[in-house]
Amino acid sequence: MTSAAPLDGLRVLEVSSFVAAPLGGLTLAQLGADVIRIDPIGGSADLGRWPLAPSGTSLFWTGLNKGKRSVTLDFRHAEGRQLLAGLVAGSGTGGGIVLTNAVGQDWLGYEALAAIRPDVIHLQIQGHRDGRPAVDYTVNAATGFPMVTGPEGYEGPVNHVLPAWDVACGLYAAIGVLSAERRRQRTGEGSRLTLALDDVALSLAGHLGFLAEAQLSQVDRPRIGNHLYGGFARDFATADGQRVMVVALTRRHFADLARATGLTGTFTELERLLGADFGTDGDRYEHREVIASLLTPWFASRGLADLAGELDATSVLWSRYRRFTELVADPALADNPLLREIDQPGVGRVLAPGSPLAQDGTGEATAAPVLGADTADVLAELLGLPAEAARALAERGVAGC
Amino acid sequence: MTSAAPLDGLRVLEVSSFVAAPLGGLTLAQLGADVIRIDPIGGSADLGRWPLAPSGTSLFWTGLNKGKRSVTLDFRHAEGRQLLAGLVAGSGTGGGIVLTNAVGQDWLGYEALAAIRPDVIHLQIQGHRDGRPAVDYTVNAATGFPMVTGPEGYEGPVNHVLPAWDVACGLYAAIGVLSAERRRQRTGEGSRLTLALDDVALSLAGHLGFLAEAQLSQVDRPRIGNHLYGGFARDFATADGQRVMVVALTRRHFADLARATGLTGTFTELERLLGADFGTDGDRYEHREVIASLLTPWFASRGLADLAGELDATSVLWSRYRRFTELVADPALADNPLLREIDQPGVGRVLAPGSPLAQDGTGEATAAPVLGADTADVLAELLGLPAEAARALAERGVAGC
Repeated sequence: MTSAAPLDGLRVLEVSSFVAAPLGGLTLAQLGADVIRIDPIGGSADLGRWPLAPSGTSLFWTGLNKGKRSVTLDFRHAEGRQLLAGLVAGSGTGGGIVLTNAVGQDWLGYEALAAIRPDVIHLQIQGHRDGRPAVDYTVNAATGFPMVTGPEGYEGPVNHVLPAWDVACGLYAAIGVLSAERRRQRTGEGSRLTLALDDVALSLAGHLGFLAEAQLSQVDRPRIGNHLYGGFARDFATADGQRVMVVALTRRHFADLARATGLTGTFTELERLLGADFGTDGDRYEHREVIASLLTPWFASRGLADLAGELDATSVLWSRYRRFTELVADPALADNPLLREIDQPGVGRVLAPGSPLAQDGTGEATAAPVLGADTADVLAELLGLPAEAARALAERGVAGC
Repeated sequence: MTSAAPLDGLRVLEVSSFVAAPLGGLTLAQLGADVIRIDPIGGSADLGRWPLAPSGTSLFWTGLNKGKRSVTLDFRHAEGRQLLAGLVAGSGTGGGIVLTNAVGQDWLGYEALAAIRPDVIHLQIQGHRDGRPAVDYTVNAATGFPMVTGPEGYEGPVNHVLPAWDVACGLYAAIGVLSAERRRQRTGEGSRLTLALDDVALSLAGHLGFLAEAQLSQVDRPRIGNHLYGGFARDFATADGQRVMVVALTRRHFADLARATGLTGTFTELERLLGADFGTDGDRYEHREVIASLLTPWFASRGLADLAGELDATSVLWSRYRRFTELVADPALADNPLLREIDQPGVGRVLAPGSPLAQDGTGEATAAPVLGADTADVLAELLGLPAEAARALAERGVAGC
């Protein structure tokens, strides 16, 4: 028996670009929502964002728009804006949901759309809460994370490569849509939601204790390289030129690590000498350098295969550092039902992930649309527009059919 | 008029520790759900996780459990496990939702709980899809990101400090609960969801194009320090010893940056010499070093205030790098309705963020509970247990009332 997809019947109109809003829409699409991304004719500024396929097609754009439909309209044209308003009004009971990071356009704002559909759910992603623009890289600079990331002793900021705030923002957007639609189903009320990238970063820094720590101690935590703050975890070099990350998060992990490396007695003596208990987070952290230096020879004298055999028999958490090319060459990827090879127009056959929320009733990854490919279909389905009328719009440059 | 909170009537039982599952529950709690975190008596392994307040109370634990209720039970005791099952069965129409990262415990698994409540929504967070354990730091090592993060020319991996995969996993968990509850409201069906931290990382690396890029090119992207891959963005030093992150993501941003720095003519000449168009992502990226070296003196000859005055008049995105202590000292934080000062037991008065999903009907941040403080209340409310019965359970060590 196949269950209905969890988001069956939900329809989201996405006027978006770059990471956050498209990821929000993608997340909903992969759980069964009908997500229609609406772009200006010719595409938005993210259409050619790197990385690119050899053909020049953006792997970023196609990656973030999988399983959506694509409509293009000329928003500079009054008729194009009216068509968008019509799509909001005509998108059915699970529709009237607008997810956007476009700012400063009244016709796309909550007031304008609530005037034509009072129960609209309008989620506006923006840089700062006050409307000033910001992107992941500027938000990250202001948080404090780049000053504690990177090698010990290094001066200067270290940016992240994963746009983590954009990612979190996109996932919060999906949460915002789902929670607002739940309320609408119960009360009939629409919602106006504002989600600022800067607030996303502040929230998470706060939830994880970074803000309170700085506020209470008035001291910045140090840059500690690949050590884990408040515990014992670090990278080690192996005899065969690999590096592994090793994590002892609990008393049991640490005891197992000591046993596996033959250092139980040494650590017990050391604890006595130092008046420490390596079973506690604080003492493992305080004495991280001496612990690491005692462990280093064990790793340095073993190849990866030997080390794996010895550590995998314990509770110790560890992993080899890999490059992206090694990751995609891992045979386990082909066996993981999360990923399947899709045929992406403009790209070819490529591995694509579905939703990590593994469950019955959700489909596998499907390709991203070609820009504008669904314009005529969507206008017909949602607005009842005959094909010849769509063609006329296209000829006048209002819609990209 | 105050609207109902979006998640009014939703009740989530969270058996959790560390980041992902608690963040999922926190996200739902801050949107109005009744989230009950259930721990073993004495707490889970994350109860003392760093950072700590001067009192020793964990700022991590209190940060991730704000606005929840806390129940403690002895799970080693059959009666404790039965009480948990009773809470799942007795948690009402919006309840029967279990969010957990505890593994290997049959009595907490989907089958056991579906046997007593067929419409249970059970979301299991785990390391790998096949059940092997993993944490953010080991998953991150395996992704490829640490090998492209950090200063250009640096050898070796650079870990992130923000546990970005845990954060994303927690937000996906909230999405999983909401989407499953939507289906249950429509069809009456429960859900069994599995969410692997490793799959979260694979999904996001795929959605952002990292997997497809490595698969198609068979080459790893280089480590490029604080440059932005496929565009122009970098950090610069100012005359007064600050560093700023500057981002030119579009043709317009770059033209404005050239104008603001008086380099329009220089860049035009340079484009001619190189046969390049800095309006395109690829050319801005390919020539990033010469562009940066031409910009460097402009930043180096200005203090932050002057530079702000000149850049803020343009579309250029920029931000000063700050430390956490500077961030929390920013007066804008006190004015941001996202944050309020709460009185956190064990910690004192501290800034705490609510949900970044700004909307009507969601409350402000509230404190985390004291471990076990709500046990008697929850057993009374959900199971009809009289106070004296709860006291008897506590005396026998089954519940932490």
